[in-house]
Amino acid sequence: MTPGHGRGTSELDRLLTLSAAEGGSYRAEIEDGWAIGPAVNGGVLLAMVGKALATTFEGRSHPHPLAVSGYFLSAGRSGPATLSTQVIREGRSMATGQASLVQEGPDGEPVERLRVLATYGDLSRLTGEVCTTAEPPALPDPGDCLSASAGGPGPAAAFIKRFDMRLDPATAGWALGEPSRRGVIQGWLRMADDREPDPIMLLLAVDAFPPVTFDMGIAGWAPTLELSAHVRAVPAPGWLRVRVSTRNLAGGLLEEDAEVWDSQDRLVAQARQLARVPTQQR
Amino acid sequence: MTPGHGRGTSELDRLLTLSAAEGGSYRAEIEDGWAIGPAVNGGVLLAMVGKALATTFEGRSHPHPLAVSGYFLSAGRSGPATLSTQVIREGRSMATGQASLVQEGPDGEPVERLRVLATYGDLSRLTGEVCTTAEPPALPDPGDCLSASAGGPGPAAAFIKRFDMRLDPATAGWALGEPSRRGVIQGWLRMADDREPDPIMLLLAVDAFPPVTFDMGIAGWAPTLELSAHVRAVPAPGWLRVRVSTRNLAGGLLEEDAEVWDSQDRLVAQARQLARVPTQQR
Repeated sequence: MTPGHGRGTSELDRLLTLSAAEGGSYRAEIEDGWAIGPAVNGGVLLAMVGKALATTFEGRSHPHPLAVSGYFLSAGRSGPATLSTQVIREGRSMATGQASLVQEGPDGEPVERLRVLATYGDLSRLTGEVCTTAEPPALPDPGDCLSASAGGPGPAAAFIKRFDMRLDPATAGWALGEPSRRGVIQGWLRMADDREPDPIMLLLAVDAFPPVTFDMGIAGWAPTLELSAHVRAVPAPGWLRVRVSTRNLAGGLLEEDAEVWDSQDRLVAQARQLARVPTQQR
Repeated sequence: MTPGHGRGTSELDRLLTLSAAEGGSYRAEIEDGWAIGPAVNGGVLLAMVGKALATTFEGRSHPHPLAVSGYFLSAGRSGPATLSTQVIREGRSMATGQASLVQEGPDGEPVERLRVLATYGDLSRLTGEVCTTAEPPALPDPGDCLSASAGGPGPAAAFIKRFDMRLDPATAGWALGEPSRRGVIQGWLRMADDREPDPIMLLLAVDAFPPVTFDMGIAGWAPTLELSAHVRAVPAPGWLRVRVSTRNLAGGLLEEDAEVWDSQDRLVAQARQLARVPTQQR
């Protein structure tokens, strides 16, 4: 098996490798390159906590996240992290839990990065009935899109290199200094090492795109206060299509909606976050 | 002061009257008529927990909910409830907390109804900058809308009577057996006793409308699994406009988005919930 292409050796699976620690908690290691500048991407932390909850619920036949709400308490850093989980309620078809991601602060004291509430179930056992009015974003072929990694050096360069991210040129004018100000960025997404999507990877996918504020002409990263994601189906292998949008930037805050479609045209994840509008600096 | 019209004596303020209990928790009483059938409305529980957190954070200059995520664990019942809160993190401009609403089960054991994570701040101190593409729903005048309480008896009758709820006839065809199947219900909302809206009342407003599944031709109430609300401004007095919609009903689950506009045309709250599609019974 070629290193980097087997399931257990992909970059994302290395991140999601948890080892059992005292008191039923888990230890994980966040390698360099999952951060935007010094701060670990919020979707990365959410996927790690999502994996910890999946591990807790797996033996109980609730392997998949259905709804995950994360409250971001402080900026995550590369290095070791401790994840703890708690089962709040367990039903026949669903279970609800709580989890935390904690790292050691500069003074050696534990600092909580993220607290999560989540409901898990088994997506493969949901009924097949679909009655949706949502339509996947109309995108040019990946080959006709703008590769995000072509952006060159910058605080997100190492993070973006972990993905193959192709932005629809119609929503990437900001990269050339011409933001559309419509509040939409959309494109194709997959892991650079071809690791296929799964429900936990979708928790990363909903927060992996450039902040929609770029398309509003606002530079800088928008720190997430809260992000709630719904995972609606196990994604099929292949490209994901992602659309992030905002409709209400006010009072120094904005909502950012993300939808993720799989290669079979299914809306596999929806997310909404409340983020701070960045100050106009890059 | 006319009973029912003063701030402290309105129906909603009676519900939100908390008394201090042991261990820093609060006691409250849920009167009859806040339920749909036997189950207390989810927005009612969310507003109660929101009030408990507001009380906790008030002295710390974070009086208003900015983001609130509630995970519904079991159906609430009329009667006494205990609310407990915990401060997770306190910053300069925002604070994050956790809360639970617990009631006594049939065997006398405590049963958790709702667990919440939330971030609070001071909405009146946010910057005035607004850059929104969202537009308020176009509605006929309240007098030209359908009064929801005209629906007569039913499991929601007592609940609906607490409001003045006027539905846009264009999205109320389901009441006459002709659902539009577009997945939208919109209209005007205020408390029947003229209690003015405030940020806590918005937590009720985002879940007070008939379930959007009615407009999909699906009878029965849709139980909420998770609801996350963003409160974006202190609402002005007067009518609220509410629009609930869904785009993705699949696998026995649906997302329901709610937006709430105030009388000054500001988008004062946005919410999204994940709910179960009801079985086809009324």
